[in-house]
Amino acid sequence: MAAKLKALILPSEQRLEDVFTPEAIAEADKHFDAVWNRLGREYTADELAAMIGEADVIITSWGSPSITEEMLAKAPKLKMVGHAAGTMKKLVPKAVFDRGIKLFSANKRIALSVAEYCLGVLLSQLRYLHSYNNSLHAGGWKNNDWYGRELTGSTIGIVSASQTARAFLRLLAPFHVKVKLYDPYLTEEAAAELGVEKATLEQVMQCPIISVHAPNLPATKGIITRELLESIPDGAIFINSSRGDVVDEAALLEQLATGRFQAAFDVYPKEPLKADSPMRSLNHVFLTPHIAGAAIQGHQALGGLIIEDMVRNMNGEPTQHEVKAAQWEITA
Amino acid sequence: MAAKLKALILPSEQRLEDVFTPEAIAEADKHFDAVWNRLGREYTADELAAMIGEADVIITSWGSPSITEEMLAKAPKLKMVGHAAGTMKKLVPKAVFDRGIKLFSANKRIALSVAEYCLGVLLSQLRYLHSYNNSLHAGGWKNNDWYGRELTGSTIGIVSASQTARAFLRLLAPFHVKVKLYDPYLTEEAAAELGVEKATLEQVMQCPIISVHAPNLPATKGIITRELLESIPDGAIFINSSRGDVVDEAALLEQLATGRFQAAFDVYPKEPLKADSPMRSLNHVFLTPHIAGAAIQGHQALGGLIIEDMVRNMNGEPTQHEVKAAQWEITA
Repeated sequence: MAAKLKALILPSEQRLEDVFTPEAIAEADKHFDAVWNRLGREYTADELAAMIGEADVIITSWGSPSITEEMLAKAPKLKMVGHAAGTMKKLVPKAVFDRGIKLFSANKRIALSVAEYCLGVLLSQLRYLHSYNNSLHAGGWKNNDWYGRELTGSTIGIVSASQTARAFLRLLAPFHVKVKLYDPYLTEEAAAELGVEKATLEQVMQCPIISVHAPNLPATKGIITRELLESIPDGAIFINSSRGDVVDEAALLEQLATGRFQAAFDVYPKEPLKADSPMRSLNHVFLTPHIAGAAIQGHQALGGLIIEDMVRNMNGEPTQHEVKAAQWEITA
Repeated sequence: MAAKLKALILPSEQRLEDVFTPEAIAEADKHFDAVWNRLGREYTADELAAMIGEADVIITSWGSPSITEEMLAKAPKLKMVGHAAGTMKKLVPKAVFDRGIKLFSANKRIALSVAEYCLGVLLSQLRYLHSYNNSLHAGGWKNNDWYGRELTGSTIGIVSASQTARAFLRLLAPFHVKVKLYDPYLTEEAAAELGVEKATLEQVMQCPIISVHAPNLPATKGIITRELLESIPDGAIFINSSRGDVVDEAALLEQLATGRFQAAFDVYPKEPLKADSPMRSLNHVFLTPHIAGAAIQGHQALGGLIIEDMVRNMNGEPTQHEVKAAQWEITA
């Protein structure tokens, strides 16, 4: 029997509790010669550089140091990097692909938490549930201004066919919505498979419900322009759970100030959202602090899913969470 | 060609706008000799009694006078009563069935609005979305006390297999939840068809998520007893969108005061909820003013759906919204 691959598992014990179940920790020990971080804090970049030469496998999460090109040069045995978190863009250099190192990310699993967030804020805004809740806590009762709409049968515009958008589409299935989706990389065939209509960004931004799922890439910065924001219909609901930078912030603040449409944001160009942001005083804008992807079960599932996929790869089975070179430029 | 049936359409013009689309008004005129209410207010009971002798058909909604046994005796031609609203219990006496008069209610359509409400408050509470929204509007950011849970894969206890529960189950399909359902009239076969596990009320009340859909009947008054409320697990979410009377109010207030679990109520034993209700000061209790069934599209659909079903009945086709004698005692 071959010796086990040596796996550096970088997350601190505190982080590990969030992203590994006890079962996933046992799986890691079973399949790898696992080296756990017992420092009571995250490793520094220097500490990682000193250890990386022995690593066949590295497992990371939020807070782990990045693997630089210099470190990569000192890691001749490295075969797989698995990230028990979302994007790997800042974690590894693109050069890993030239070395044939396989990458695994838990992005797809986090997307489910994001999708549940999207549906929750959407249903709440359609029916003014949070406004009613606040009103009743302040002594109120019915309010004729808050005669809500149903989601069932609505038209929804979606920006980008990312993993979060796809998870959202799955949750929307029983609502029989009509979906217009903008994604320059989506083929007509793929759109048909998803049950959506391929649309221009202009068409998407004219829908009565709009949800932005664009990846954080140089190419998506500012794609939701002033003109597009001005084209949002009165009475619409505009949700952004992807990245704040995709929207022209100055134009957004101007449009929100008109009160023409409702909005919900989990992300902002700068986080935390500054204390004096004008958004904080607009009741028709639903605000959360970049928590759409963070749910207990969703996070605890991440470590196990990375381990499982690495084991599939070692066994020559098809993987589910591999990040491939071809998608590197167009996904988050 | 036979003369058209004479239909008294009771709702005032103001109410009619809420529950009839222009298309449904045209359908009513097409299929019936329709007598519309042009008084600018609802009819009184005396006015209805004076007209009822000519009626083959009566169409009602919220605010319409009830049809009493005395009126029924003066209405020899009456064949169908359609209610563009929910329960017909207070609208017609049970004696209509002895006369072979057919009843139609839009209860099933309203259930969809209720189901969207249930999913909205549930997703909001699981992730503390409304709490975060208030916190950010008050200058806050992340909060470690509000690390949310996902709905996907959860276990949900449901009280009563009513129309609202069935609509809720349809919306829950993509979440792959395990459902324990208590309903004394539900057979094992019907439970299997719904994809739920038949359970006792005790078992349902021990689930981490509990949603009450019991009809408002003498038999359901107070069925959620003190003992059952005490058995709700810590950290659970308890939702009641049916009727306030099904819960022991004093025991409920005591349990809510402990803060052991979250709750959401759209209904109360007395409505409006009194200004000094202790619930109004509990942040872990989500409150709405009996609006779960009220969404614009849902309400506007009601009139047309009643007309359509009456036409089906006249054509000898199967109906979808008929209220039958056998269900009179066990449904709302």
